[in-house]
Amino acid sequence: MGKKEALYEGKAKIMYATDKADELLVYYKDDATAGNGAKKGTIADKGVMNNKMTAFFFGLLEKEGIKTHLVKVTGEREMLVKKMDMVPLEVIVRNVAAGSLSKRLGVPEGTPLREPVLEYCYKDDALGDPMVNEYHILAMEWATKEELDLIASYSFKINQVLSDYLRQANIELIDFKLEFGKTKDGQIVLADEISPDTCRFWDAQTHEKLDKDRFRRDLGGVEDAYQEILRRLLGE
Amino acid sequence: MGKKEALYEGKAKIMYATDKADELLVYYKDDATAGNGAKKGTIADKGVMNNKMTAFFFGLLEKEGIKTHLVKVTGEREMLVKKMDMVPLEVIVRNVAAGSLSKRLGVPEGTPLREPVLEYCYKDDALGDPMVNEYHILAMEWATKEELDLIASYSFKINQVLSDYLRQANIELIDFKLEFGKTKDGQIVLADEISPDTCRFWDAQTHEKLDKDRFRRDLGGVEDAYQEILRRLLGE
Repeated sequence: MGKKEALYEGKAKIMYATDKADELLVYYKDDATAGNGAKKGTIADKGVMNNKMTAFFFGLLEKEGIKTHLVKVTGEREMLVKKMDMVPLEVIVRNVAAGSLSKRLGVPEGTPLREPVLEYCYKDDALGDPMVNEYHILAMEWATKEELDLIASYSFKINQVLSDYLRQANIELIDFKLEFGKTKDGQIVLADEISPDTCRFWDAQTHEKLDKDRFRRDLGGVEDAYQEILRRLLGE
Repeated sequence: MGKKEALYEGKAKIMYATDKADELLVYYKDDATAGNGAKKGTIADKGVMNNKMTAFFFGLLEKEGIKTHLVKVTGEREMLVKKMDMVPLEVIVRNVAAGSLSKRLGVPEGTPLREPVLEYCYKDDALGDPMVNEYHILAMEWATKEELDLIASYSFKINQVLSDYLRQANIELIDFKLEFGKTKDGQIVLADEISPDTCRFWDAQTHEKLDKDRFRRDLGGVEDAYQEILRRLLGE
């Protein structure tokens, strides 16, 4: 289970090989980027907080029957995960208009959507992670129809579980991004992370932003926002 | 049936009111634009050619059971059409990668797609006609699920009919754009036009472009290309 060579370094995480061929070690960094890397910075202890929050959310989802890549937490910034073939998509679920959706459709941030909206982006930094639809995905063979139907139904279920839980913590789940992988035996499994890096969390009463938008938009209080989410979830 | 006041002037057509409340007169202009109006010009007799071609294609589709807004051709640049509530979407069907799809996905122009790809863009010049998906359309109430399912199935049927017909004229249908409207009694009906302004037509052997890309990309021979399509379709 020892950490071996780094296989891939992303914007916020490093993936290491381990002694087991079918397991990887994820190391959560404090690095933060925005605008596809145009803006760079550091959020103190983000790696520690995101590792903790992701483990918490994945545990919550596993209890509700959603399979995740988490094997176990192995350190304050590290978790052991299943090695998978990643589906090259970012899956975005939206309950309230914000960010790129508000810009794309000219809808003011904070406008509730009549029903949850699902979006797919093709993961490719050089192309700027373009939005794609199901037809593109099938034509490019990024996933099969069966896989995509599972990904959509898991994503809506995850939205339900997370929204319900967060509501009790006085947090509104505005939108979030998921990534999925496929195990050797063909199962679709939730991967990546669930944290203020990948979700928009708003205080349910004040609508204060408690997520990476504080970094993206230079709103200040970035670390405090991440801490506040952790406190509300875990009482820490 | 007399032409009355202009109700709307678009980039390539003018819509006039008529004596009948449920009919409009479409006047096809020679004006051509590209890049959402960034480039402007004129294509000699385009209005005459597009009126003729649209009438021809609509007739072909009607025979195959696709309802269109065409009532009758009333002049060399004019057709009488049903007045409808327009669905605010551009519906794009693609058989081969080209144009914005090639750019978006980094796929070379001319790459055949494994299966036809359908795309929706929200018609809004100020927003740049952004690509949207079914979830956006339902959440924004631009169409109902039932209407959207009909639009998709009509679009694939139209692709089949047009592709088959054009193949006999040695023309490959690369992609095209459709618009639909809703009649008073709730029927979804094909509107707008079908012409080298709204389709990519390639010579099936040489892959020579016989459409508005000759104008968009300053390839020359614009009028000749439109004439050539007309000649192959109608022997004119």
